[in-house]
Amino acid sequence: MAGSSFGTLFTITTFGESHGPALGVTVDGCPAGLSLRTWDIQRELDRRRPGAHPKASDGSDQDPKLNPASTSRKEADECEILSGVYNDITTGTPITIVVRNTNQNSGDYSDIADAFRPGHADWGFTQKYGCRDWRGGGRASARETIGRVAAGAIAKKFLAEAGITVLAWTSEAAGITCEEFDEAEIERNPLRAPCPIKAQQMLDRIVALKAAGDSCGGVITCRVSGNIPAGLGEPVFDKLDALLAHAVLSIGAVKGIEFGSGFESARMTGSTWNDQMRSGTSADKPVFVTNHAGGIIGGLSSGQDILFRAAIKPIPSISIPQHTIDTKGVERTIAISGRHDVCACPRVVPVIEAMTAITLMDLLLRNRASRIY
Amino acid sequence: MAGSSFGTLFTITTFGESHGPALGVTVDGCPAGLSLRTWDIQRELDRRRPGAHPKASDGSDQDPKLNPASTSRKEADECEILSGVYNDITTGTPITIVVRNTNQNSGDYSDIADAFRPGHADWGFTQKYGCRDWRGGGRASARETIGRVAAGAIAKKFLAEAGITVLAWTSEAAGITCEEFDEAEIERNPLRAPCPIKAQQMLDRIVALKAAGDSCGGVITCRVSGNIPAGLGEPVFDKLDALLAHAVLSIGAVKGIEFGSGFESARMTGSTWNDQMRSGTSADKPVFVTNHAGGIIGGLSSGQDILFRAAIKPIPSISIPQHTIDTKGVERTIAISGRHDVCACPRVVPVIEAMTAITLMDLLLRNRASRIY
Amino acid sequence: MAGSSFGTLFTITTFGESHGPALGVTVDGCPAGLSLRTWDIQRELDRRRPGAHPKASDGSDQDPKLNPASTSRKEADECEILSGVYNDITTGTPITIVVRNTNQNSGDYSDIADAFRPGHADWGFTQKYGCRDWRGGGRASARETIGRVAAGAIAKKFLAEAGITVLAWTSEAAGITCEEFDEAEIERNPLRAPCPIKAQQMLDRIVALKAAGDSCGGVITCRVSGNIPAGLGEPVFDKLDALLAHAVLSIGAVKGIEFGSGFESARMTGSTWNDQMRSGTSADKPVFVTNHAGGIIGGLSSGQDILFRAAIKPIPSISIPQHTIDTKGVERTIAISGRHDVCACPRVVPVIEAMTAITLMDLLLRNRASRIY
Amino acid sequence: MAGSSFGTLFTITTFGESHGPALGVTVDGCPAGLSLRTWDIQRELDRRRPGAHPKASDGSDQDPKLNPASTSRKEADECEILSGVYNDITTGTPITIVVRNTNQNSGDYSDIADAFRPGHADWGFTQKYGCRDWRGGGRASARETIGRVAAGAIAKKFLAEAGITVLAWTSEAAGITCEEFDEAEIERNPLRAPCPIKAQQMLDRIVALKAAGDSCGGVITCRVSGNIPAGLGEPVFDKLDALLAHAVLSIGAVKGIEFGSGFESARMTGSTWNDQMRSGTSADKPVFVTNHAGGIIGGLSSGQDILFRAAIKPIPSISIPQHTIDTKGVERTIAISGRHDVCACPRVVPVIEAMTAITLMDLLLRNRASRIY
Repeated sequence: MAGSSFGTLFTITTFGESHGPALGVTVDGCPAGLSLRTWDIQRELDRRRPGAHPKASDGSDQDPKLNPASTSRKEADECEILSGVYNDITTGTPITIVVRNTNQNSGDYSDIADAFRPGHADWGFTQKYGCRDWRGGGRASARETIGRVAAGAIAKKFLAEAGITVLAWTSEAAGITCEEFDEAEIERNPLRAPCPIKAQQMLDRIVALKAAGDSCGGVITCRVSGNIPAGLGEPVFDKLDALLAHAVLSIGAVKGIEFGSGFESARMTGSTWNDQMRSGTSADKPVFVTNHAGGIIGGLSSGQDILFRAAIKPIPSISIPQHTIDTKGVERTIAISGRHDVCACPRVVPVIEAMTAITLMDLLLRNRASRIY
Repeated sequence: MAGSSFGTLFTITTFGESHGPALGVTVDGCPAGLSLRTWDIQRELDRRRPGAHPKASDGSDQDPKLNPASTSRKEADECEILSGVYNDITTGTPITIVVRNTNQNSGDYSDIADAFRPGHADWGFTQKYGCRDWRGGGRASARETIGRVAAGAIAKKFLAEAGITVLAWTSEAAGITCEEFDEAEIERNPLRAPCPIKAQQMLDRIVALKAAGDSCGGVITCRVSGNIPAGLGEPVFDKLDALLAHAVLSIGAVKGIEFGSGFESARMTGSTWNDQMRSGTSADKPVFVTNHAGGIIGGLSSGQDILFRAAIKPIPSISIPQHTIDTKGVERTIAISGRHDVCACPRVVPVIEAMTAITLMDLLLRNRASRIY
Repeated sequence: MAGSSFGTLFTITTFGESHGPALGVTVDGCPAGLSLRTWDIQRELDRRRPGAHPKASDGSDQDPKLNPASTSRKEADECEILSGVYNDITTGTPITIVVRNTNQNSGDYSDIADAFRPGHADWGFTQKYGCRDWRGGGRASARETIGRVAAGAIAKKFLAEAGITVLAWTSEAAGITCEEFDEAEIERNPLRAPCPIKAQQMLDRIVALKAAGDSCGGVITCRVSGNIPAGLGEPVFDKLDALLAHAVLSIGAVKGIEFGSGFESARMTGSTWNDQMRSGTSADKPVFVTNHAGGIIGGLSSGQDILFRAAIKPIPSISIPQHTIDTKGVERTIAISGRHDVCACPRVVPVIEAMTAITLMDLLLRNRASRIY
Repeated sequence: MAGSSFGTLFTITTFGESHGPALGVTVDGCPAGLSLRTWDIQRELDRRRPGAHPKASDGSDQDPKLNPASTSRKEADECEILSGVYNDITTGTPITIVVRNTNQNSGDYSDIADAFRPGHADWGFTQKYGCRDWRGGGRASARETIGRVAAGAIAKKFLAEAGITVLAWTSEAAGITCEEFDEAEIERNPLRAPCPIKAQQMLDRIVALKAAGDSCGGVITCRVSGNIPAGLGEPVFDKLDALLAHAVLSIGAVKGIEFGSGFESARMTGSTWNDQMRSGTSADKPVFVTNHAGGIIGGLSSGQDILFRAAIKPIPSISIPQHTIDTKGVERTIAISGRHDVCACPRVVPVIEAMTAITLMDLLLRNRASRIY
């Protein structure tokens, strides 16, 4: 299976470039019988769309100036379901979803056609393929995540039927860390941070960075909760954490992941780290006293909440001049002036939710083969 | 492909339980023409074997008492190549390597046959499969990594032919962090730390933890260097960092991974994070001024050193009493008295090297298909 | 990988139903640097399109009445490339091709919404998925092959660069067998038979069968020739013949395949069957005296022409009344009156060429990993 | 996944050469809870072992001279289960089974180390890999099927639990075709033919061919019966017939496969071919009036018996002198004098059963994911 596919039974294949005719995804292996409407996909796509978050109080898109974290590129990103659904029910056949590119502004990028932008995939793509679609980053554009989010919307619906919820949020951005957690707040502020005060502080710093032509990174936290069966994950290579790490690190902006206590585990002892068990409502529903493992022990779900954090690097496109070389190896100074986010976090949140949901759905289906009956 | 296999063209499949007849690996897709002797495998297996590191000055195994970090279980772990090699050259057919279990001491574990050890896979396995081989952790034992290390030895030989070296070390253990780096020191001390003074401090703490019936975690750093071509990795899901994360998180003890500046990236700006380029000896050999990306930009190798860090959780087997439940859901107190490591780091080092080498070899082979010629 | 994908490095994923919005394919793993225009795809799609073959002398579509073998359903089947190509060159990223359905005539089928057509997938789909898109056969429609033919067009271009040609033809239909072989004749007659006299005899019988409300089957022969390297195929399960059989039997109408002497081999002896070798122009270009093996020995290409034959079953849609049951298990008589082919052979010819080209291209890419250098 | 593996959820990986230390298989993805003893494997291995069939009336191996169809090479082929089974129950972890080679007689083959035997994989292997283990055909030896038969024994047990039986037999050999069918007779005669009179005629011809230094081919028929659910198979590429064709054509001796009426379908009409349906005992258990489809319609099982036939080529090793070339391209005459079967059919019968069972088990497990509940 080539690199644009992910998953064993629930397999997604994304396609499309930033400035090509369209982007999208084919979802193969979705079980029959799932209720699915275009709107189920569209509302998730709207969450990753620039300039669409947070909504104005009347439900319309807000003035993008209210969200300085985000690019001013504005596309409707309207999706169409091409196959696999009949009478609003999945039929078991492949579901292809496409989004047309309508606001390609190649002129924004033509000055960088023959130079490698620092922090971008330009250099690697050129070395690998001998050529590249440089317009807007081509395949390496963040627009590639449209396909992921569309597929994730299907997985989220499947998980919802199973009583499982995936939720992510910006826990840190521009050096500001949220300490309080108000779930209802997440979709209310441009940063998708669970605390309005910290969200405002983040925004203030982002406004200053933008003015300076710079950008920033952050941390996204993800939690899976609800009716998670114990035993999800396929030993020994497709452990739940291994697959989640694969899924999340495949998102361009992510540079690290940690589960539960993560890197802090390095400084703990067995007696403080181990999540001890108490009897619960039934023999298969024990109570774990703590959750340092992030809900994953020995690569299998424990039944507790699954918890992980992902490190998001700063947006590489900045207008501060940088050293680079061109395709002939000659040195250059480059200042990137296009429409770009300043902080990727709020728009990566739905992508991380999507990849998490896709991974879990696949493992739930694979888990059906774990016993003879 | 079921869960005990990893890789697309260079595919490894491990098998075996801690107390079954044997453990091992089948390596399929190794190209023909690679020089391979049993000794190439054995020397890597010896690196992960308890009680074998560091060697005494005469080359013999040391008294295990000299390495308080490690279990006193002592097995020869002698490997045998069953197939795929003829006249010390790989033939392109599957290479199966087995190691017999000789020192199974089921008695050590029978008291825990019907209780779930905190921090272990016991609970998840039982919920998933409805049964488990509880002897020594069964398939979830660290002995499963024998197959990985054997396969990794093959990958390392292939990489060596290509001029690429994989090296890992303990950069932190028991709360002590190495700041100096002396490569020659790594294999000289029981911790595989690159600094003798810090290694001794780690050991001192480990002796104390052992006396208290406790254990500790740490951090392992890995570096790939040498003749790394730019462009390794397969967009968009099999990015180099995504596959390395999958590979490394599939090791039982690992709870997090970060590439280059990793989680520190969250606090940086685009202007401080981006690795700017200068012209080098030729157009395809630029000089990167920094390496915050850990040698991976946009999911593709840049040609710089690949750098990552992995968080290692504390060994879960401790003799301090812990709360748990038995298979009937009844609460129990458990104290685990078998032979166990106190700190996993030194023995995980060769496993991380192995999984890294396996991942890179697979991507090097896949990369041969990136262009029409 | 779910069931709508095929291939290891060159992976195709088809999608779409007969009466949904669109059908198509995503081709992932196509190497960068291949010249590709929409026309390269369109001309192959035109070969499978009903009513488009053979062309009138002025290049326009002929009156479908001239081709009684084919359905009168007439669609332009215009394809669009959504991704993966820039400046008419493949970039190494996924290539998605879509064809909109424009002539859906659901009314033709609504009388069979709740009865199972004999010889069709209706029964199996309903039992498998609990529901189905019954319009025009849904996913089981022959229109699904649009995606295969589009992907095959890419593979054919790649093979052409490598000096390899795939050619298929109708060697038998309606009980008439071609004995002479005139390659130039194949695309000239509606049957794609390599002999004009037999083609006319086939057509005569088909006209009579159509009048009687019946249909017929046939045999398609396929030949791969040119610069085929010896050693294509991946022992032991992905043998060249095993993968070709998988590829060709995945086409709905095919009920058998045989390579070289095929079933006739059963009646031969080792001394008459073995293809003996003579020295050729160089040590790696021997001369084989015969080709009973169909160019595949031990699952690997020998370098000779690859030859196989595929059995095509009669078109199952006939207007002669047949016994069947409805979704409640009640018996019914059904007469299928929609627009259907009488003989599938001429339109399966380009599909078999496509699946053969796809299989070979994938194996050519995989073969690059067979040796260390 | 490299070429020595087969299957999506139930994945087998075989390894081993004819004259290496051992052969075997790793079976990954076998569900937990299946009763499995060494004897379950051994009895199937004994069926493919030369000189072991048919048994003497006292259960012991017969004098091999009684079976002139078979090689006189005699090995115990004793298997050992290395992993995945605890207390005679599968645990869900990989099951590795090995058989040691004990009767390697390299001397028999050394004269052909540098010449290519006609009809053998020697030429292809050398061209592909640049080297080969020529002893006894190396990986291309029929001994490779040991791993398949061992894995098939597990699949057969799983199918037996589900009420499904796989049975194959020699329906034609040396030009003699069985017309009568007595199931009880199959394991009683050396040919595994379902008719004692025809079996004797086959043997007579085989004795004559052997005396002449020649060999012969045949046809094997396979039937799957019992509680087969309708809907097995994964549209559109992993159709049941496509996967069975892949599985069966991956066996070295097979040159063709046909399902149900197979190539005869080419001469039938829709009205004679279609399997019409009548109501049965319940809505999901219809009665099919005929079975021209071989139990597979639209690539999905219909619930009827699955029926196919496989063409077996003559054994290529013959002592009649043949033309060939050596590794330097120089012409040679070769007469192969080692221990060889004369007709492969009786020993391929259990291999075809094994590959069929493996394919069905995998599809039964995959089918569990076809609906949301």
